[in-house]
Amino acid sequence: MQSTKQYTLAELTDGLEIDIKGDPHCLISGVSTIQSAQPGHITFLTNAHYRKHLPETKASAVILSTNEASDCRVNAIISRNPYFIYAKIAERFSTVQTTQPGIHTSSVIGDNADIHPTASVAAHCVVGANVRIGAGVVIGPGCYIGDDVTIDNNTILDARVTIYSRVTIGKRVRLASGVVIGCDGFGFANQHGQWHKVPQLGSVEIADDVDIGANTTIDRGAIENTVIEAGVKLDNLIQVGHNVKIGAHTIIAGCVAIAGSATIGKGCMIGGTTAIAGHVSIADNVICTGMTSVTKSITESGMYSSGIVGAVPNIEFRKNNARFYRLDSLMKRVKQLEQAIIKIIPVSADKLQSDE
Amino acid sequence: MQSTKQYTLAELTDGLEIDIKGDPHCLISGVSTIQSAQPGHITFLTNAHYRKHLPETKASAVILSTNEASDCRVNAIISRNPYFIYAKIAERFSTVQTTQPGIHTSSVIGDNADIHPTASVAAHCVVGANVRIGAGVVIGPGCYIGDDVTIDNNTILDARVTIYSRVTIGKRVRLASGVVIGCDGFGFANQHGQWHKVPQLGSVEIADDVDIGANTTIDRGAIENTVIEAGVKLDNLIQVGHNVKIGAHTIIAGCVAIAGSATIGKGCMIGGTTAIAGHVSIADNVICTGMTSVTKSITESGMYSSGIVGAVPNIEFRKNNARFYRLDSLMKRVKQLEQAIIKIIPVSADKLQSDE
Amino acid sequence: MQSTKQYTLAELTDGLEIDIKGDPHCLISGVSTIQSAQPGHITFLTNAHYRKHLPETKASAVILSTNEASDCRVNAIISRNPYFIYAKIAERFSTVQTTQPGIHTSSVIGDNADIHPTASVAAHCVVGANVRIGAGVVIGPGCYIGDDVTIDNNTILDARVTIYSRVTIGKRVRLASGVVIGCDGFGFANQHGQWHKVPQLGSVEIADDVDIGANTTIDRGAIENTVIEAGVKLDNLIQVGHNVKIGAHTIIAGCVAIAGSATIGKGCMIGGTTAIAGHVSIADNVICTGMTSVTKSITESGMYSSGIVGAVPNIEFRKNNARFYRLDSLMKRVKQLEQAIIKIIPVSADKLQSDE
Repeated sequence: MQSTKQYTLAELTDGLEIDIKGDPHCLISGVSTIQSAQPGHITFLTNAHYRKHLPETKASAVILSTNEASDCRVNAIISRNPYFIYAKIAERFSTVQTTQPGIHTSSVIGDNADIHPTASVAAHCVVGANVRIGAGVVIGPGCYIGDDVTIDNNTILDARVTIYSRVTIGKRVRLASGVVIGCDGFGFANQHGQWHKVPQLGSVEIADDVDIGANTTIDRGAIENTVIEAGVKLDNLIQVGHNVKIGAHTIIAGCVAIAGSATIGKGCMIGGTTAIAGHVSIADNVICTGMTSVTKSITESGMYSSGIVGAVPNIEFRKNNARFYRLDSLMKRVKQLEQAIIKIIPVSADKLQSDE
Repeated sequence: MQSTKQYTLAELTDGLEIDIKGDPHCLISGVSTIQSAQPGHITFLTNAHYRKHLPETKASAVILSTNEASDCRVNAIISRNPYFIYAKIAERFSTVQTTQPGIHTSSVIGDNADIHPTASVAAHCVVGANVRIGAGVVIGPGCYIGDDVTIDNNTILDARVTIYSRVTIGKRVRLASGVVIGCDGFGFANQHGQWHKVPQLGSVEIADDVDIGANTTIDRGAIENTVIEAGVKLDNLIQVGHNVKIGAHTIIAGCVAIAGSATIGKGCMIGGTTAIAGHVSIADNVICTGMTSVTKSITESGMYSSGIVGAVPNIEFRKNNARFYRLDSLMKRVKQLEQAIIKIIPVSADKLQSDE
Repeated sequence: MQSTKQYTLAELTDGLEIDIKGDPHCLISGVSTIQSAQPGHITFLTNAHYRKHLPETKASAVILSTNEASDCRVNAIISRNPYFIYAKIAERFSTVQTTQPGIHTSSVIGDNADIHPTASVAAHCVVGANVRIGAGVVIGPGCYIGDDVTIDNNTILDARVTIYSRVTIGKRVRLASGVVIGCDGFGFANQHGQWHKVPQLGSVEIADDVDIGANTTIDRGAIENTVIEAGVKLDNLIQVGHNVKIGAHTIIAGCVAIAGSATIGKGCMIGGTTAIAGHVSIADNVICTGMTSVTKSITESGMYSSGIVGAVPNIEFRKNNARFYRLDSLMKRVKQLEQAIIKIIPVSADKLQSDE
């Protein structure tokens, strides 16, 4: 990404915990990937997958860790956390969209709404009664904000976000387009074969510094609130059921389904398409790899996974499926073999241990 | 949830099939969970997971079944269906949003639209030509309703719902924000390596008392209509393909994917993240647990599941995966053992049965 | 689907590569499914599942392949690609919505937007600065188009589509309601237990003839662009992570999750609910059946699958799960049996091969 801005390496890294190996006066005019970088670009190396591109990169500087630095033939920015350093440097090349404070004339504002003069409400929004919008908040075009919602300072709603009534949102929260927060939880009681709605009386609390990705949905609690603690990062198309609690600084990748009343600890990392059953608890600092199915509580930190993953040729897959369904028969055959062998060589019987 | 309303137990349960064990004049001012309840609250017990909280609950009353009642030290509301009774009682503490009838001046209404005077169309809606909106219907802010759509009495669309042309929606239907109904089904014909759109000529019929969750999508039929029968309850982020039929009073949890032309019977319960293949049929009263993959028709009622579920430590998972892919070799080894044994002790050969 | 239009078989098939077996003057007034067709309807047979309906169909004509034609008792339209022929014929019965060119007065248009006079912008849209909208483009109600977006000729956005800034969209693209293109990719760097946003400096390029289904989300690139090549077809509720590249004429069914930096080749077919891990590459012409988990790169064309699929009665499923977790013990028992046998009949030891 070429930019019109230009900095020396020293300027770019001012205040960051890094060592420069090379020329701190080198001019940098953009960021790039290690394989596509051109002279004047800065890039980074954090994934071993891309290490092969380091010796030939045309970048003017590479951000990397000490143990990668020896293979770096250009200026090296050495850090214990190269990706974080990259994030901070990339901010310098990012175009910040400036938004005019004030309320667009096409937007419809409810009674007693308290919108800070430094906040911005774009076109075609509908803001309910008794809403409080703090300083520096940016509400994108076409958002709907229900009655009695509170949005704290410097939070940003992109276009077409929906916030149902009584939701509270903290500071510096970012909500991408299509996000829906506070819709009714999925509660129905069956009586005589028909489903009757269970009123969803709680709401949703989103703490400070939360990011929520496009078209993600967060249900309001049945009785108490659904709670997303500070610093949580949610990707796109995630479903968060009613009464769920997600602990501070947990990060959850795309298309994860979290059923009602599940509790996820602090500092967890949940891989994409993971499914978490209702009412389970996940301890702090748990990592679930992608596609994990959490059907019972996880009480200790660590890395968890499930299922049989990995794509194989369909013909292998069909055989595997068939074998899997013959496991019971296989186990019986082994048992019979053991019984037959014991008759011949009783001396070795102690070696034939069964777990059945 | 504390409320400004207050009722005696007798008032709250008037007309419901319950027995009160305790004081029918006890005043109740809110509902709560069994573990968080305070004096003045009513709560319920339906999930064995929460039974441990019953002896110490501070609630003034608990709704529960006969066989839980003996452990209840406070007023007990005894029912064969405690969750349904809770639903009815919670309604009394629910704040019903009152909506003004009429069409907001910012909304754009097409030719020949027939909107009942008791219906409400909020701000920034676009309603197409020849739309019929019945008595008591509530259309939330920012909805789009295509041409020739019919919405029957007392149906509620939350903010930012999209209904494509010619869709019909029954009475007392509730559609959450971000729902899209009647988008084109996924039909493409390949000719010489390129995909050509197959016109999607059908539409969608939603019967009475259907609930649809946030950001769920329902495709219009290719030729005939996609049909959602009466009383169906769909959670958030569900995909319903073209030509699908979902039978009456079936309930489907979040993130389920239903491929085109699948038929689901009446009274089914489909767990979250289940995937249903195209063209399969599922009988009435089938239960699929969460994460089931339905690849063939299910012809009898009952509970179905699939795969290997449950999160295990990643190191175990890696071993399991490895073992799974050695199953074929294991089966061959057992067969060779059987053949070797038979040579030694032919008398026991009949006991060594093979399924291969 | 009955229509007010009527054509002879000869008119309907003019210019298409087919043979008519029967009466080319037969009048056709609508399309239908093979099982519901009435006289005057044309239908098609492409799925063996529906072959049983051919002998009794009441249709006036059936589009089918040569080897099905002998069972057809009505007029037959014989083609090597019956579904493509059906698509072309169905277009004749499709109602094309005519849209008035011009910008609805309620829409808000940014500075320097260049909107072609033949394009249409419906009500309640917000179009950013420096946007270029080509000839014949249709922007549905309630869309948001960010600054510096380019939309090429004859592209159609249905209602409530969101396009973030700097995205480029080709010709004849169709975007269904709720689509979000160009939202920030999911990039966060952890420093001292907290997640810091990594600026997402790239954008999204959508080439010509791409279709994208309802509520699908496509993230903008971290540095370079996320790229969707020509003729790609995406179904509903798909997540496309940042930096992903999808090759020309690839088709992807609903609810697929594609993690960041994955590359999918040309001409692939990806079944519904498939999950594709980050940074993997998939070769051209790969087919993944539904529910595949692609965790490593696929380097050769072919059909791939994974996991254990297929719903079985829950009681069987529980046994299978239990057996699976005893595989390790089973393998050890077989090894011990082999060692015991070898002591008795060393001559056959060469037949007892181990893969351990």
